[in-house]
Amino acid sequence: MDYTKTSLEKHYEWRGKLQVDSRVAVDSREALSLAYTPGVAAPCLEIEKNPALAYDLTRKWNSVAVVTDGSAVLGLGNIGALAGMPVMEGKCVLFSEFAGIDAVPVCLATQDTDEIVATVKNIAPTYGGINLEDIAAPRCFEIERRLKELCDIPVFHDDQHGTAVVLAAALINALKVVGKSVSEVRVVINGAGSAGVAISEFLIALGVNDLVVCDRAGVLADDDRFNAAQRALARKTNPRKVAGVLADAVKDADVFIGVSAKDVLKTADVRTMATDAVVFAMANPSPEIMPDDAKAGGARIVATGRSDFANQINNVLAFPGIFRGALDARARDINNEMQLAAVYAIAGLVSDDELDEEYILPRAFDKRIVPTVAAAVKKAAEQSGVARV
Amino acid sequence: MDYTKTSLEKHYEWRGKLQVDSRVAVDSREALSLAYTPGVAAPCLEIEKNPALAYDLTRKWNSVAVVTDGSAVLGLGNIGALAGMPVMEGKCVLFSEFAGIDAVPVCLATQDTDEIVATVKNIAPTYGGINLEDIAAPRCFEIERRLKELCDIPVFHDDQHGTAVVLAAALINALKVVGKSVSEVRVVINGAGSAGVAISEFLIALGVNDLVVCDRAGVLADDDRFNAAQRALARKTNPRKVAGVLADAVKDADVFIGVSAKDVLKTADVRTMATDAVVFAMANPSPEIMPDDAKAGGARIVATGRSDFANQINNVLAFPGIFRGALDARARDINNEMQLAAVYAIAGLVSDDELDEEYILPRAFDKRIVPTVAAAVKKAAEQSGVARV
Repeated sequence: MDYTKTSLEKHYEWRGKLQVDSRVAVDSREALSLAYTPGVAAPCLEIEKNPALAYDLTRKWNSVAVVTDGSAVLGLGNIGALAGMPVMEGKCVLFSEFAGIDAVPVCLATQDTDEIVATVKNIAPTYGGINLEDIAAPRCFEIERRLKELCDIPVFHDDQHGTAVVLAAALINALKVVGKSVSEVRVVINGAGSAGVAISEFLIALGVNDLVVCDRAGVLADDDRFNAAQRALARKTNPRKVAGVLADAVKDADVFIGVSAKDVLKTADVRTMATDAVVFAMANPSPEIMPDDAKAGGARIVATGRSDFANQINNVLAFPGIFRGALDARARDINNEMQLAAVYAIAGLVSDDELDEEYILPRAFDKRIVPTVAAAVKKAAEQSGVARV
Repeated sequence: MDYTKTSLEKHYEWRGKLQVDSRVAVDSREALSLAYTPGVAAPCLEIEKNPALAYDLTRKWNSVAVVTDGSAVLGLGNIGALAGMPVMEGKCVLFSEFAGIDAVPVCLATQDTDEIVATVKNIAPTYGGINLEDIAAPRCFEIERRLKELCDIPVFHDDQHGTAVVLAAALINALKVVGKSVSEVRVVINGAGSAGVAISEFLIALGVNDLVVCDRAGVLADDDRFNAAQRALARKTNPRKVAGVLADAVKDADVFIGVSAKDVLKTADVRTMATDAVVFAMANPSPEIMPDDAKAGGARIVATGRSDFANQINNVLAFPGIFRGALDARARDINNEMQLAAVYAIAGLVSDDELDEEYILPRAFDKRIVPTVAAAVKKAAEQSGVARV
């Protein structure tokens, strides 16, 4: 199928992929008096007395805003928030279809960090959670950090943390298949944008000790070729002081993780990796290396972001269950504990018996995923003290 | 029925009066590839090339944000935006049920004018229109004025202009019944908050020449007992230089319009009005004077905001059709021409044959209202040059 042509036709036909429906029929004066004035004064006054009741008396308990400034939409780059709207509506569709969450797009008329922070802070009372989407690095790091301090609801940049969660689950299961341990493998990450930085931080938290991160300018270093987030990462990675470019970094590596651009990894590069190499080539729609080419270089396990190959690393495995669990806990935050719980919940859905080179992650439409992830995330929220129920 | 008790119970049962639904089933990899990646890149790129296509390829064409800072919610006052959420959801329900509009609440964490303006400006690309709701005067005037300049979609403070439109329709028909003309009647407005100021401005535009406006401190004057909007109004009203309080102002008046507080108008005051007096007592839930008491003072036509008396002056007669027409026109603004068109459309729904003391406005559930008002508003948008289709 020509997805470009068909999708455009479908979007003209749909005229928007979301709609807002009333849960209350207003077909009589009495119904109007209960859902609106004068009756509605009663729930208002209850919430004024006890703000937590907003979770019981309004839709806040199930509402998420999908917020973008349109600066890094898919692989399309800085196309602006209005042009990003079809993606945001699509994301909201996934929230609805996978997790029954009422998600709405919020496309911003600004790409200024301070304005984005102030705007999201100001609209936050409306929702039970904020999903930041397609905001460019390095701006996205500061925006998320400041919003997490300002808001009493979870703020989660899915391009960073959703990707990191699914990738970590894939890595855990891949290392099981090849019989290597997280603490001993050499891992190379190519691409130090929002996803690459978040994955790096997350893998360190998960126990990876030997991590080398590359970007277009080569292996990250603490110098002015790199932004603040990248320099901070340079200081806590690369224990063997590898220098040079990607081809230098992948030599003897056990794991390659690409969140960069198509065709940057060659079969010849994979040949220099350790035996039983793992290659996660997640650039979309064209990966850093095609699976057949990676296999030709000796890779034992290959995963991509694409649905037409085995082992799809897809954010939809994580964010619906993570938000479902956070909302169910009325959580103040989606913290590291909750994200780690999601990793192990996702990884655990492929049993040791089922696990093999072509099946390291549950498939996107596996109905067990959202309830399993949500339950684990909710429990972690409770245990880490950010739940409100 | 005890609306307070029943409404609170119902709100606990509903757990929110709105929900967001997907218009697209995502039950296969193919469906996912059309609604989301990779297919969704196509509509994004179309909108980047031609931003107007957001009206065709996303839900912008039918979306309205109902924005509040919670500073003047119903008659409850400054209860805050979160506590105002049940009202905003109720308003969205009316948008949906009466006009098929996808409306979402936006409850703000700020009551600062500059922050409100910046926040609404920043989220505006998402929507086809902005409905400001329950924002206190005088702040509401500046917020609306600045947002109308900054946004390329309609910004409409319903407490001001929706009320003014319905009231003007009621006045036109009431004056028909009593055989008086708009240009000759003496009109007194009590209450110079957001609704009172907007009604005053609107009645002047409609041709009322003798208008006296009162607030708690008495007849408006250009001195420091009054805010800037009230002082501006003082300069262009009160041609006979009436001084004093409400009781002084209503003497010989043909029309009393109350948007103030309960029981401020007495039967004795109505007795001093002109013959065939018209009394619109819109304080909610308890009017400025009860209909029987106004009639006892000689009023010929009485209207209130309440559904349990004849002649309910209810914003629901106006805003669903006004926004429907503005959205259908992809209008940049809801200007005076469009509001006047709404007035005459609403008034015209009661024919001269039907018109009498107890029936000056169509009833809230009259199915003709929204299509009639929407068509008139859309036409006025086209004729006044603010339509984009």
